[in-house]
Amino acid sequence: MNANYLHRAWFRLVCLILGLGFQAARGQPPGADSASVRVVSPEISADHRVTFRLLAPKASEVLVSGEFLAASRALTKDANGLWSVTVGPIEPEIYYYNFTIDGVRALDPGNPEVKTGSTAGTIQSVLEVRGDGPAFYDGQPVPHGEIRTRWYQSQSLGTLRRLTVYVPPGYDRDPAARLPVLYLFHGANADETAWTRLGRVNLILDNLLAAGKARPFIVVMPFGYGAPPNTPGAQGQNTALFSRDLLEDVIPFVDSQYRTLADRDHRAIIGLSMGGGESLSIGLNHLDLFSMVGGFSAGLSRTGDFARTFPHLVTDPQAANRQLHLLWIGCGREDALFPTATRFSAFLTQNGVKHTFRQSGGAHTWMVWRRYLDEVAPLLFQW
Amino acid sequence: MNANYLHRAWFRLVCLILGLGFQAARGQPPGADSASVRVVSPEISADHRVTFRLLAPKASEVLVSGEFLAASRALTKDANGLWSVTVGPIEPEIYYYNFTIDGVRALDPGNPEVKTGSTAGTIQSVLEVRGDGPAFYDGQPVPHGEIRTRWYQSQSLGTLRRLTVYVPPGYDRDPAARLPVLYLFHGANADETAWTRLGRVNLILDNLLAAGKARPFIVVMPFGYGAPPNTPGAQGQNTALFSRDLLEDVIPFVDSQYRTLADRDHRAIIGLSMGGGESLSIGLNHLDLFSMVGGFSAGLSRTGDFARTFPHLVTDPQAANRQLHLLWIGCGREDALFPTATRFSAFLTQNGVKHTFRQSGGAHTWMVWRRYLDEVAPLLFQW
Repeated sequence: MNANYLHRAWFRLVCLILGLGFQAARGQPPGADSASVRVVSPEISADHRVTFRLLAPKASEVLVSGEFLAASRALTKDANGLWSVTVGPIEPEIYYYNFTIDGVRALDPGNPEVKTGSTAGTIQSVLEVRGDGPAFYDGQPVPHGEIRTRWYQSQSLGTLRRLTVYVPPGYDRDPAARLPVLYLFHGANADETAWTRLGRVNLILDNLLAAGKARPFIVVMPFGYGAPPNTPGAQGQNTALFSRDLLEDVIPFVDSQYRTLADRDHRAIIGLSMGGGESLSIGLNHLDLFSMVGGFSAGLSRTGDFARTFPHLVTDPQAANRQLHLLWIGCGREDALFPTATRFSAFLTQNGVKHTFRQSGGAHTWMVWRRYLDEVAPLLFQW
Repeated sequence: MNANYLHRAWFRLVCLILGLGFQAARGQPPGADSASVRVVSPEISADHRVTFRLLAPKASEVLVSGEFLAASRALTKDANGLWSVTVGPIEPEIYYYNFTIDGVRALDPGNPEVKTGSTAGTIQSVLEVRGDGPAFYDGQPVPHGEIRTRWYQSQSLGTLRRLTVYVPPGYDRDPAARLPVLYLFHGANADETAWTRLGRVNLILDNLLAAGKARPFIVVMPFGYGAPPNTPGAQGQNTALFSRDLLEDVIPFVDSQYRTLADRDHRAIIGLSMGGGESLSIGLNHLDLFSMVGGFSAGLSRTGDFARTFPHLVTDPQAANRQLHLLWIGCGREDALFPTATRFSAFLTQNGVKHTFRQSGGAHTWMVWRRYLDEVAPLLFQW
């Protein structure tokens, strides 16, 4: 069972018990009695149908949009101004959605679960549809690692920044043991908390470790943007600046603060979307530092010249093949970046660079990236 | 400078640079051009006036409510359906606010900073007004501790739960050093992340430590609800169940997993609001385990019989005085719980129990609690 889910579920009950439940007083229309404003949304039925509700007597149109819908669905209004719609059944997964109320994008005010990011447009409500058993990303009664939030002073960028670090279960028990490190990057509009909050990397790895399917390693998740404001000439330099921070600040800091195996054989670099562009361009151009490289739905240039971005793969592909323990790219067929991933795989093939190209179902969403992580983590540090 | 703030500020610039900025396409009214939908809200001027904006052509009333306003303020609509209002100047602090659009409570869709909680009613947008220099709660270039997210199996509650743990700078450097522990509880509608996300306990302590004003200690922040759903007879048992989890699971787990000084002299217990009711009732009834007890705007019963909740303080107040290194209660004069805090202080005084009653300005808000923490932390473990 997932603890976060439990927390929320309990909390709702406790609120009822303690009489501390949310009273939508400010949002209450004149004359509505308080019982009628306790709107339950989303409500998930046993057969995985989901009902969304919103009390908005003055609204003339309410839509719901979400990853579980091909197109927005309109809610319908009852005599009390309560809008609702039932959709599904929806396959068990974690989805993001929002309402649009008379043209204004809004959260579901009945739902405390919120996906945040580093831009306003990424804020959405969370719908978690649970299956009969635990999912691979659920918290289960197995040994758990620790998520550490760590501040560091970036000398290359001149600012204080934050890392998220996962250490596997038992990390503190053996002060002599050293571990490999996966550097793992988020996508655009997100931040250094995305892979733990949305990607559930810690729970996925805890579960794989408990099943004996992966080797223990540390995961380091930096903030994936490099260009501070007012940096002269920063235009287009995001990856270059991020790369400097990673190579000059983050990696030395991590190797000094955590018990790492600080060599290329024990360093992997993977990212998703914008972070996939970063992991491929930094990783494949620094095979002295990394031996495993991955890109999930990678944000490579759709029209760019790969031979210019990755010159060593053209001039000496056999050196790359000798140095790479793993080169793994994956993309969902419904993802707008799928043609780019296909073109990149073809470039690698043309140059004789060994790699895995995982073509999966799915779009540009976290459910794809969680599954990729679950698939790739067992391959890391296993050569 | 505060790194989180920097992250966001950078991010907004980088978005502009990269052309990845949020385009409120779904919220776009027919005919609006995309330049006009890039709504800047909130906009903070140099003199700390704040302008809120919302594009909602079909709305007939938009209000903003927040901790910086005595009452809701109406926004006014221009010919393009852009609502706005300017308020202030507002004193530098971190505030929470929301819009009400035709009676529906909503976040500010222009603002990525969101305060979440464990109930829907706690979701608000965040307004951070910055002063000329760094605040006591800002990230600064000083040594930083680590925030650790730790899962544990609660035997007493039969579920997987999560702790937030702060370890001070250098905790990993000396594997022989042992530290005192503060158990710190959140209020109703919040969760185990509230004291770090909203309370900024880590940054406040990092700053105090750098200034030589506090002794290093570990802070343990559990999830403050004890009653899981469908627990027969759980009604009214929240504190009792939370207490069992704390005493039978959390404290032994922490003492086994972290390098603590595991005795009453080195254990403090403090909470805010509902958590203040918990810290006072558990702490003052377990002086064998704790020697420092605090309650911030404590959620004690407004009408309850303190002599029944705290019998030992009546029967043997001198024993309590000998055992307590610190008993600190604080409440803002604008807080609805102020009369309760006053009554509790009078109860302590009548029984001759030494304590500090800090009567401050302010209401039932995080800005009061952050200041209390900054004031109390230097007093801990210093006898």
